[in-house]
This record gives sequence, structure tokens and C-alpha cells, in this order.
Amino acid sequence: MEYQLENKVEYIISIFEAGEISFLGNALEGVKAPDAAEILSRLPHDIRAALFNTLEPDYASEVLTLTDEGVTRDILEGLEVGEIVPLINRMASDDAADVLNLLPNTLLHEVLRHISREDYRDLSELLKFDEESAGGLMARELLTVKDGIKIADVISLIRKEAENIEHIQNIFVIDGQGVLLGKIPVISLLIADPQSRVDEVMTRDIVTVTADTDQEEVAGIFAKYDLYSLPVLDEKGKLVGRITVDDIIDVIEEEVNEDITMMAGTGDEEFWERSPLRLSRARLPWLLTGLLGGIASAIVMNHFQGSLESILALVFFVPVITAMGGNVGIQSSAIVVRELAVGGTSAVQTSGKLFRELKVSLLNGLVLGAVLLLAVSLWRRDLRLGMLLGMCLFIIIIWATLMGAFVPLMLKKMKIDPALATGPFITTFNDILGILIYLGIATLFLDWLGKGYNPG
Amino acid sequence: MEYQLENKVEYIISIFEAGEISFLGNALEGVKAPDAAEILSRLPHDIRAALFNTLEPDYASEVLTLTDEGVTRDILEGLEVGEIVPLINRMASDDAADVLNLLPNTLLHEVLRHISREDYRDLSELLKFDEESAGGLMARELLTVKDGIKIADVISLIRKEAENIEHIQNIFVIDGQGVLLGKIPVISLLIADPQSRVDEVMTRDIVTVTADTDQEEVAGIFAKYDLYSLPVLDEKGKLVGRITVDDIIDVIEEEVNEDITMMAGTGDEEFWERSPLRLSRARLPWLLTGLLGGIASAIVMNHFQGSLESILALVFFVPVITAMGGNVGIQSSAIVVRELAVGGTSAVQTSGKLFRELKVSLLNGLVLGAVLLLAVSLWRRDLRLGMLLGMCLFIIIIWATLMGAFVPLMLKKMKIDPALATGPFITTFNDILGILIYLGIATLFLDWLGKGYNPG
Repeated sequence: MEYQLENKVEYIISIFEAGEISFLGNALEGVKAPDAAEILSRLPHDIRAALFNTLEPDYASEVLTLTDEGVTRDILEGLEVGEIVPLINRMASDDAADVLNLLPNTLLHEVLRHISREDYRDLSELLKFDEESAGGLMARELLTVKDGIKIADVISLIRKEAENIEHIQNIFVIDGQGVLLGKIPVISLLIADPQSRVDEVMTRDIVTVTADTDQEEVAGIFAKYDLYSLPVLDEKGKLVGRITVDDIIDVIEEEVNEDITMMAGTGDEEFWERSPLRLSRARLPWLLTGLLGGIASAIVMNHFQGSLESILALVFFVPVITAMGGNVGIQSSAIVVRELAVGGTSAVQTSGKLFRELKVSLLNGLVLGAVLLLAVSLWRRDLRLGMLLGMCLFIIIIWATLMGAFVPLMLKKMKIDPALATGPFITTFNDILGILIYLGIATLFLDWLGKGYNPG
Repeated sequence: MEYQLENKVEYIISIFEAGEISFLGNALEGVKAPDAAEILSRLPHDIRAALFNTLEPDYASEVLTLTDEGVTRDILEGLEVGEIVPLINRMASDDAADVLNLLPNTLLHEVLRHISREDYRDLSELLKFDEESAGGLMARELLTVKDGIKIADVISLIRKEAENIEHIQNIFVIDGQGVLLGKIPVISLLIADPQSRVDEVMTRDIVTVTADTDQEEVAGIFAKYDLYSLPVLDEKGKLVGRITVDDIIDVIEEEVNEDITMMAGTGDEEFWERSPLRLSRARLPWLLTGLLGGIASAIVMNHFQGSLESILALVFFVPVITAMGGNVGIQSSAIVVRELAVGGTSAVQTSGKLFRELKVSLLNGLVLGAVLLLAVSLWRRDLRLGMLLGMCLFIIIIWATLMGAFVPLMLKKMKIDPALATGPFITTFNDILGILIYLGIATLFLDWLGKGYNPG
């Protein structure tokens, strides 16, 4: 599969470079839209634009809903209002809203002026919602019926609307005010007696969300209840849209990318797409923070110059202290961040988590401190230095573990993305503090160390 | 929601502790199975077992398919063969196989001996597959029809099987040998002329996988093609099962947890569930590696004792060098790992990625090297030391960035999980190498530095 796509990409580049533009029109014949989206994303800008222009409107419209944000934006930049409108007209409302959100404001309004009255109402409704909320995810296209009508009538309604129906799992039953009463899975329409009323067949016990629910929470609900679609209500219980599971998979991938890029300190990079210059710009702020932290460490060490001059061996163990503080901090913060992403939080769990991490760090601190004590005592033939280092490592492991768990929990309470805590900030902070604790304690014990010190 | 669950948990604990076991039976009345699974996961072992025993078989069976692995295992430990068999009998084959996979071997065979002949065939078929393959994910329950029969007959078949049908999106059409020919979405059954034949209505162009496809690839296919269900074929094209999208969401979460725990170096921890002792045991191997790396750094630094004694200030910048090497390495490896997880790889992309990372690292190295040069020159009033440090940082940034991208690409080629490269191994390795490069270069330039050196 991968191999075929890459071949196709090379073939398209070669016919473009040979100037045989007329062949471009057939290059994607028989290629499924998701594969076409992938091929477009791998082409350079000018070939991508040329190829996209050869696609039929129906196919082009579908492909455009499937490309990554960066690629979609790049394609849109090459199109005029008159070319964008027919593509938007062919999309489901949620896809259309996603594409419109990528347009600059003036262009957006021009496009909206040219689409049909009904689509305009749906779309301007959708564009009001935060993109990362249930309202931003939902589609307005719904198959709704009033309570009291017969199953047979629902089936004839579906036959009439056949052309516009795709990926429908449920019929929603509403009352006269549009309030959601229940749902009927499509398969039940086949099984139920055609003469029974929808309210006799429908399931009343359904999971719903309001339009302002955060997308991460929506994804959690899909995962928990094994849903295929989820109705979205306004504050009065009126049905305003539905979210389907295929969009939820995209949400999960997006949230994961966010967490991982934050953990790695790369900013909100996009994959496949960006230039080295932009990648560098995304990563530099995090690296500069790290660099300033490193310079701060240097200043801290300079402060302990006297101690370091009298026992140079202290210096050798600075990397041990900083690396271990960083490692245990990342472990506990990554676990806590993941727990928060998967399961939410509550007061009981917060103190429970800190207590659990405290116990883990006591165990780890004891084992690792003992190993370092042993290693240093044997290598440097200096039991006192070994004891000092073992103790410092023990303290730093407990400190860094607890900070690693505490910071994301605190960020969550402050409604800041807890994944921030897994990034370079906390590691840098732990580095400086670790050096301070280590050299501070060493300085206190300098005389004791010095007396027993025997330089190998 | 969260609040209600926590209240329920506390209520259950309180009635259990008050000894009012008879009230336990009603504690989960009206609670949806996924919520019940969550409540069970938050209860201590003995209360969990007592509560589970009060549940009706249908409900208990559903709840048991929804609890996390650790909780399911804990519940199973409290049950006897005679109690497990009716629970398994009520499950879909994929869920049953997942639960059976958690049983110790002897118990598994005893349970299999007691289930119905047909279930036995399905289950022993499923248990043969790797849990992380398409075969391990699929269910055997399928609605298949032979080509040539009429839509009306399909509908009557569905009416007859009504009780066993749940979450069905597609009817699969097979030939006399069981080879998959096409599929019909349920909604098309409503729309199509009842007198038409299934092979006139079916979609022939369908995405399929073979049973040995890795689950990560399966998840990628679902995401790319926006699928709700995916037929699984054997090597002869015979339809053997289907995978549904709700299981795919679990797969994605599982793979993400794997990547993140590897990135954090915490081993394959389970969330919510494990004791501090087990958590500590999962994390310690990674930490011990880090500690040994740290001790190796100390030995490297000891080797440069002479240089350090003559210019102590060199020591102050060791944390800068190690921290920055670690930061840029994690950035590039996390991005490459994520790209591999999302999109697969090919030779063109491998060299492309390395080249991209090289350009990014050149830019970052120049900027950060210049900042360090400036900072050190001003602080230490020592231009030569500043130049040395700026150059070393530049070299280390390029080296660590390229290693960060290269190692996961190489691991992928060797069919090892590339996420391993984001963990503490590479950071530790970069630390040691960074110190070696830095102090090595400094030692070469010692005379040049020494002449110009002016200790503040």
C-alpha cells in the first residue's frame, strides 16, 4: 500500500516535470479519496495545485475534507471564491465548517455570501462554536422524526431522502419543540412492526452532550460507552446536531499529538508539512528556556566554586544528579498526565496519586541511593562521599517524583493543559534545584567529607 | 458525572463497611454498564468481589467486558469455572476471547470444555491469533448472505436473527466458498428494491485486512478510510470475522499509552491499578540504566580531571551541554516516532526526514550556540571560553538531533518499536557522548583557553 502510494507520487512528479500536464487528469483514476489526500500531501506545492485543479468537483470536495490542515490550507490558497463555493456546497456541514475555519476572514464571508440559504444557516451556526468543542465537531445533518409517527412512514421518509443519506446509524425522535426523546437504530427499522409508532420502538436511555462540551471529554464518552454517534443538545435539550465516531478518531490523534509534542517540547508542530525554518521556530522557544536554565545551573555551580575546588570529585556526579532528577520527574508526570487525559480527576484521586507517587519514590530512592553509595564507595574508595551521594540522590528522587506528579495536577486545577508539565520546563527546573540541593548538602558536610577524603 | 460516580463509590464502601451486604444488590440499579465498570475499578479488592457477585449474569457479563485488564483479572481470580462459563456464554466472541486470554492456562481449558460446541470452535479459532493482530481484534459473529439471494430474503433473515443482532452496520455477501464479494450497509436494505438481488445492491469496492495484520496498522486503516467496521479475510480471501470501530478506539489508546510509557521510561505500567511496589518495579530498570549512564559520565569526567583542575569554569557548563543534547534529541525522536506511528515509512522519507532534521539542527545550533557564546563571554568576561562553548553546543545539537531522528528510523527497520528511542536510553547515551565531545574539545584547546583565561 505504502509502496503503491509512493510510486504514484513519483509517477505524478515525473509527468509534471516532463510537462505532460494533460496526463495529470487521469493520474488519480481509481484511487480512493483518502489515498488521493495522502498523495496530495506528499507532492510539492505547485504540482499539488496543478493536480487538484484536474479533479472533478465531487471527488475534489471529498479529498479536501480528508487532507491534513496544512495541506488543505495550501490548496485553498490557490483557489478563488468561485472555485471554493461548489466544493463547500458538496460537503457535509461539519466538514464544510472545518474547511471554512481555515479561510482568512474576508474570504470566509465572501464564500458564505455565495452558498445556499439553508447551508448558510447551518454553517454560520456551526462556525459560532469553538472548534475544539462538541459544537465544533458536530454535523447539522440529522434524520429526525416527530414522536407518534409510524415506522412505515419513517421508512418511506428514508427512501425519499436516500440520496442525501450516508453513514446514518440512528433516527432521532423529537417532540414538537425539537427536544430529543429517543433514538432508533437503523437495523431496528427492519425488525420492528411497520405499524408500530416510533415512540414504542425507540430507545429512551441515550447518552448526549451539550454543544459546549470539550472535545477531549466527548472523545472520552465515545470510548467509554462504545458509541458510533452521539447527539448534541443545546441548553434547552433541543437536538442541534450529531457527532460521528470517525471524527472522534481524529480528535484522539490530535490530542495525542498535542500531548506528545508538549512532552517533547516541540510546540504545536505539524507533521509532514512544515519547512525546516518553521520547525526550528516551533522548537526554539523550548530550547532557549532550557539554555537559560543551563546557564542558571552554571551560575549555581559557580556559587559553590569553593567546595568544588576543594573536592573536585563532587563535580563528576553532577550529571548523575540532574539526569536522575529528570528521569523520575518525567516518569511520574507522564503517568499522571495520561491518567488525567484518560480519566478526569477528583479531590480523592489527587491526594491518592501524590501518596502513591511518594511511596514509589521512597522505594526507588532507597534502591538507587544504595546502588550509588556502593558504586561511589568502591570506585572512589571513599565511603563518606558514597554516603553523601546516596543520600542526595535519595532526596532528589523523592523531590522530583513528587513535583512530577504535583505540577500536572495543579495545572489541571488551574485549567491549563497538564501535558505542559512533562515538557522541558519541569526538567530544567529540576536540574537547577537538583544541583542546588546536591552542592548545598555537600558544602554543609565539606569538613566531614574533606577529612575522610582520599583522592583515589 | 465524575461527581456522581465518586459518590456511588463512597456509598458502596460505606454500606459494605457497615456490614449491610444485602443492600449491595441494589447499589448499581439503573447504572449503565460502562459506569458500573468504572465504579468497580475504583473499589478495593474485597468490596469489588462482593459487589460483582450480586450482579445478574447478563449485566455482570457486559460489565466484565468493559473493565480494564487489571480489574478484569482481579474479578476473575475470585470466580470459579462454574461462574465464569455463563458469563463467557453471554459475550460476543471477541470480548470472550479477550477475557479468556486473561485466565491461567489450566483454567482456560476447563472453561473451554464447558462452553457450547459452536462457541468453542469460534473461540479456539480466535485464541490462536496474536492479541495485537486483526485476528485478535475481530469478532466471529457476522451477518453473511450468499450472492444471488434477494434483498427481501435478507430482511427476513435479519428479522429471524433479531435477538442476536447488535451494532450491525453491514451485511457481507460471500460466494459458495466463503470468499468475500461485497457488503451492503443496513440502510441500503431499507432503500433498495426488495426484489433486487444482493449482488446488484452491494458495494464491491471494500477495504479489507488479513488476520495477521498488526493492530496499529488496522487502526491506521480505520482512521484513514473513516470506517465503522472492517472485514477480516484469511489468506484465501475467505471472510473470517469483522472488527468494529469501538474496539479500534481502545487500540489507539493502548498504543498511545505504550508510546508514552516508553517515552517516560516507565515500562508497561497500568493505570489506576498497580501497587507502589509494582510501579516501582516497572520503573526501576529504566532508572538503573540512567544511573549506570550517570556513573559512566562521572568516569568520563574523571578522565578529564587535569583539564577541569586547570579551568574549573569548564565544569559549570556540563549541565548546559547534557540538558541541551537531551532536549533536542527528544524533540527530533518524538516527532519521528509520531510520524512513524501515524504514517509508516519508506526509503525516500527516511533520508528526507534525516535531511530535514539536519537543516533544523543547523538553524537551532547556530542560534543557541550564539546565545551561549554571548552569555558566557559577558558573564565570565572570557571570549575564548564563550567561543569554545558556543562551538561545542553547536556540534552537540547537530549530533543529538540527528541521532534522535536516526535511532527510531533504524529501530523501525529492525522491527523494534521505535518509541524505545524516546526513552531514557538515548538520553543517557547522549549525556555521556555530550560530555565526551565537550571536554574532549576543551582539552584540545586547553592551552589556547588557558592563555586567555581570566577567572572573573
